Amino acid sequence: MPQRNDRSRGADRLVVLDGRGAAGPARDVWGEVWLVGAGPGDPDLLTIKALRVLQMADVVVHDGLVSDEILGLAPARARRISVAKRKSRHSYGQDEINRMLVAFAREGLTVVRLKGGDPFIFGRGGEELEACREADVACHVVPGVTAALAAGAPLTHRGSAQAVTFVTGHAAKGGVPDLDWAMLARPNHTVVIYMGLSTAASIAEQLMAAGRSGATPALIVENASRADERRVVVSLTGLAEAARTLSGPALLIVGEAMALARSGQGRAEVEAIVREARA
Amino acid sequence: MPQRNDRSRGADRLVVLDGRGAAGPARDVWGEVWLVGAGPGDPDLLTIKALRVLQMADVVVHDGLVSDEILGLAPARARRISVAKRKSRHSYGQDEINRMLVAFAREGLTVVRLKGGDPFIFGRGGEELEACREADVACHVVPGVTAALAAGAPLTHRGSAQAVTFVTGHAAKGGVPDLDWAMLARPNHTVVIYMGLSTAASIAEQLMAAGRSGATPALIVENASRADERRVVVSLTGLAEAARTLSGPALLIVGEAMALARSGQGRAEVEAIVREARA
Repeated sequence: MPQRNDRSRGADRLVVLDGRGAAGPARDVWGEVWLVGAGPGDPDLLTIKALRVLQMADVVVHDGLVSDEILGLAPARARRISVAKRKSRHSYGQDEINRMLVAFAREGLTVVRLKGGDPFIFGRGGEELEACREADVACHVVPGVTAALAAGAPLTHRGSAQAVTFVTGHAAKGGVPDLDWAMLARPNHTVVIYMGLSTAASIAEQLMAAGRSGATPALIVENASRADERRVVVSLTGLAEAARTLSGPALLIVGEAMALARSGQGRAEVEAIVREARA
Repeated sequence: MPQRNDRSRGADRLVVLDGRGAAGPARDVWGEVWLVGAGPGDPDLLTIKALRVLQMADVVVHDGLVSDEILGLAPARARRISVAKRKSRHSYGQDEINRMLVAFAREGLTVVRLKGGDPFIFGRGGEELEACREADVACHVVPGVTAALAAGAPLTHRGSAQAVTFVTGHAAKGGVPDLDWAMLARPNHTVVIYMGLSTAASIAEQLMAAGRSGATPALIVENASRADERRVVVSLTGLAEAARTLSGPALLIVGEAMALARSGQGRAEVEAIVREARA
């Protein structure tokens, strides 16, 4: 169990000498913010550094995609705050999250902002980094394995994928996302679409309208790297129908290299080997 | 220290009963191949799973980009084979590497193919996966943090980067790489170029010829995440000149979101914090 660093102990010294009182402690006992990628889901796909940083957290501000198993790696005394999008309850806006990170750090706390995947691939980590810089709060980034890397299929491949592009299929106002379809339709090119399950039909249609062949193989991965992972390999023409059979957090990957992908469930075999090795 | 799994113990039971003799052991004592991403360089950016798998290796077949510090995490008894590209000595071709992985697994060994970054982003992992499948050798993939995620700047960012594309700047026969410049020149789009240091001048020229603004910010990261990391922020017009000042393994990242990147050296501050926490 690592010890906490000097700055994170700031929380124990909230009585400060600069007379600012309610404004919080002086700058030299401010805490700091760590933007940490939690990886695709399997706790073993955390980096060693992410684990270490999590173990020194005073506060963990996390998304809905981060599992209880991973949250359990933070100290028991650490406060856990979910900022997951919710339909029924209050949802935190990005500005509110930014203010929260800065405020906790100014209280002298070590703040871990824990995100599924990597903070800088559709994680809005850039906005949080900017907010910390503007507030003069120290902000460090611990990269994570973004979900597409755990899809089990090569994103680049000799002869069939000389480039890979990552986009999000989430449309701010619902419906068809506003993407550069001509670019995404280029052949010998892998396109990874995060959060594209609900817009899969539009995405497939737009890609084909822009010239991508309907025969292009496509992979849908639900709960990548988790025990309940499911992988479905189809063609671009079959993408919409296949997407309707899934419901969890999912990635769509379209491209010639997905010819190497395989349908299947779970990671049972690998799990058993690693569990055995760990014993 | 994890124990080895049953199959990796196959090396101790090379005397088999199927009479195939020199052809190696029977299928049921074959070993297996693990394609493992070693991350960008910092050993703390290995995943926990990569560390566990490395610790059960009988043979580690590794690239030049993998540091001695990381290789040192494999058991002392494990055989280490470098397949790094070399100018003066024998270089292993991809077919030769594929055959080696299969042959070791058929000897009953647990083979770890250790690559800088992630196996499926310009790691030729797809070719090794195919070779194992063709030979009916079990092959598992452990994803890694690809170097671009450790560059310290957001690859996607609200308002300035709705997509990110990864390409390689390495040209098979030297000179200008054969890339889809029109696609890469699209605005509000981050372009990550692996192995592009020596072709940086051509890359910048082609991007501008295809319409990308010369004012687009660009980041060069040498030895990302290592103690000797260097980051230089320039504009696309200044990319060629800046690239000439660097020589190590480097990434070029071009795009509007690189306005958030900062020049600098090393990871000294973060290192000190983590070292302290570890003590």
